[in-house]
Amino acid sequence: MIPFFLNDRIIIGDNMNIIDIIDKKRIGNNLSKEEIQFVVDNYLNDFISDCQMSALLMAICINGMNEEETINLTNCMLNSGDTIDLSKINEIKIDKHSTGGIGDKTTLIIAPLVAACGVKVAKMSGRGLGYTGGTIDKLESIPNFNVNIENNDFIKQVNDLGVCICYAKKTLVPADKKIYALRDVTGTVNSIPLIASSIMSKKLASGCDKIVIDLKVGNGAFMKNLDDARILANLMIKIGENNNKEVICVLSNMNQPLGNTIGNSLEVKEAIETLLGKGPKDLTELSIILATHMVALGKNIDIESANKLVKEKLNDMSAYKKFLEFVKIQNGDLNKCKITAKGIQVLSCKEGYINKIDSETLGEISMRLGAGRNNIYDSIDYSAGIIMNKKIGDYVKKNELLATLYTNKDIDNIILDVINCYEIDNESKELEPLIYEVIK
Amino acid sequence: MIPFFLNDRIIIGDNMNIIDIIDKKRIGNNLSKEEIQFVVDNYLNDFISDCQMSALLMAICINGMNEEETINLTNCMLNSGDTIDLSKINEIKIDKHSTGGIGDKTTLIIAPLVAACGVKVAKMSGRGLGYTGGTIDKLESIPNFNVNIENNDFIKQVNDLGVCICYAKKTLVPADKKIYALRDVTGTVNSIPLIASSIMSKKLASGCDKIVIDLKVGNGAFMKNLDDARILANLMIKIGENNNKEVICVLSNMNQPLGNTIGNSLEVKEAIETLLGKGPKDLTELSIILATHMVALGKNIDIESANKLVKEKLNDMSAYKKFLEFVKIQNGDLNKCKITAKGIQVLSCKEGYINKIDSETLGEISMRLGAGRNNIYDSIDYSAGIIMNKKIGDYVKKNELLATLYTNKDIDNIILDVINCYEIDNESKELEPLIYEVIK
Repeated sequence: MIPFFLNDRIIIGDNMNIIDIIDKKRIGNNLSKEEIQFVVDNYLNDFISDCQMSALLMAICINGMNEEETINLTNCMLNSGDTIDLSKINEIKIDKHSTGGIGDKTTLIIAPLVAACGVKVAKMSGRGLGYTGGTIDKLESIPNFNVNIENNDFIKQVNDLGVCICYAKKTLVPADKKIYALRDVTGTVNSIPLIASSIMSKKLASGCDKIVIDLKVGNGAFMKNLDDARILANLMIKIGENNNKEVICVLSNMNQPLGNTIGNSLEVKEAIETLLGKGPKDLTELSIILATHMVALGKNIDIESANKLVKEKLNDMSAYKKFLEFVKIQNGDLNKCKITAKGIQVLSCKEGYINKIDSETLGEISMRLGAGRNNIYDSIDYSAGIIMNKKIGDYVKKNELLATLYTNKDIDNIILDVINCYEIDNESKELEPLIYEVIK
Repeated sequence: MIPFFLNDRIIIGDNMNIIDIIDKKRIGNNLSKEEIQFVVDNYLNDFISDCQMSALLMAICINGMNEEETINLTNCMLNSGDTIDLSKINEIKIDKHSTGGIGDKTTLIIAPLVAACGVKVAKMSGRGLGYTGGTIDKLESIPNFNVNIENNDFIKQVNDLGVCICYAKKTLVPADKKIYALRDVTGTVNSIPLIASSIMSKKLASGCDKIVIDLKVGNGAFMKNLDDARILANLMIKIGENNNKEVICVLSNMNQPLGNTIGNSLEVKEAIETLLGKGPKDLTELSIILATHMVALGKNIDIESANKLVKEKLNDMSAYKKFLEFVKIQNGDLNKCKITAKGIQVLSCKEGYINKIDSETLGEISMRLGAGRNNIYDSIDYSAGIIMNKKIGDYVKKNELLATLYTNKDIDNIILDVINCYEIDNESKELEPLIYEVIK
């Protein structure tokens, strides 16, 4: 397609122009495959401006996109850059994705655990933008850990060791990168079709056969309620089907941080404890469930057998040993890991049961401590973060330790902000489940 | 207000930030006066980006704004720049505005006509962006006509002659200028609250006491149907009331171009013919009605008396003489006006009654001929345009002249495009009224 300008509007072939397409979505009509292709191509080529794109994105946020439009958008984004060819790995390759939550370090546990069960884990990850680091940031908190791995080495490591996690290159789904950066600053993140196409275009580009998605639901996640989460799950499964990829969504609770730590080095430490069988109950349980689904898919066996195998490989230290090998082969030095930040104790002002924790604000606080980046140019303080000494359902006395903050910064008023994240009452509420449901 | 940045977002005073405001409108909530002030101030100061603004504008286009929000937006825009003080003109000053239509040259007729009736007309106008020129462009098609008049000279001329039309300075409502330019390229023009606040902020800034608005309805106007036009009219009247300005809206038919000409010099010629009593029926009728309302408001007399006076001043050539004086005092030389463009005849391919004319497309064609500008850097060919030899209700024979195009350009396929604007049938449809209703 060769775009040219007529009357200040871009015309390709059949007299399409961006204003007409924006108008169409503004009044709530569906966009054709050709129109979506026109938008993605011309936005990447800078023929459609950021302003025009943000107006269209807002119209999509409000008026939505149907299944067909979402599948077309995903495919156009997928085809906007390179895709990874993993055909040289002869077994079924499983990918895992989390829609993002506070204190989510499951990948560090699951990847070696699933590999220890004999299933190939080939995972490309990103750095985090927001409350805490992404998986790549967490791995890079291990001194010398190498995340920049060439395709051939990536394939070799998956074949030899059974697991590799590397940084997703910029040439993978460039349309998603450009659109996501715009959504982030224009209040257009909150749209199920846009979230689905963003996640799925990246997952499809990275070449795996089957994908397990940990879809977080709650006050620390994009999806605040179960209804929206179910719509997103079914949409991602449909997009997968359309591309002949099996997708399973595990809807898990994100009404409090996962595990007891937030922050990169703290989370690596907790992941290791979990691999040693000494991790927090929620993190251990979720890791086992996600690993079970990955193993069932990878080995084509039933859930019960997969679950048995996963527990066995966790209990007999195979998973822990696989983790050590994985860190070593990617050059990481666990002996050099340490928390250098100073600790600040946050004591409870009140006695009672913890009934609610504002996870999103805690995530924001961890970013202020230095554990996350607010924009792509920020650097992360790996040793900054939060230890949650109490969680939902726990009883806390006045002046008892609620949380410990780690930071190298001087930050005003942060203790009060942390205290305000906790709802403490005389009576305890019924505990919510960790896993709401599994959709396949 | 001193804005500063926190977490990449702008905070003024009470922790406001643009993403939260966009979110609020995205989910359909109302914005407070302070939030609207924050948006207007920070967009003008470039602290809010074009992309963020276009996302917010799209949310407003889809989810709307209530009366209070629209009044607040209008006032914030009004206060974003200079306002004109006309208190040195001791009588009631009347302004007239048209929401824009194809072939609309009524201002050229009404301004001297109303002045001839003894009512002060102090009018600031703009250049056109789009299908044809604005009033300023039409006046500038008269060689040497001066539209750049200083405030004191403007006031003196209104006091002495009773009428002055000058170019609205850039310092008048800069927020509207910046927002309108963005709306124009992002598909966010079509919103009643945004249209109302844009028109009314400019009218209020130019200092008149009472305003008559010619609100065009039909396929050549922003407002395609009567229901929307009524909502817009009532909103503008409310905004006027809120600022102690009486506003009257005349809802007039724009399902075909007004009069028989489109294009700057052609329209000046037709305006003069109308002032001489030899103009087309629709243009003459609408001019008399609009002038009647202006005179009734300006002299505080009833409509019947005003109408009688207007017709008298038109018939006895007072209005025409006032026009000549007005052109002379602003330095224009009517003797030098001429149509230099070559004429192209468009003949009908069909015999029958003309039942419909696609006015918007005819406007677009007149722009292609050179009569309008597509962007602010384009220059206008004053002698380019269209003469409508037939209008709705007329009977046309095969090969009879439908229209004559004037242009200095070579344009392919234009004749077929013109022919396609006409719907010609064996039976004639009932004629629509020229004036639908008057709302005050």
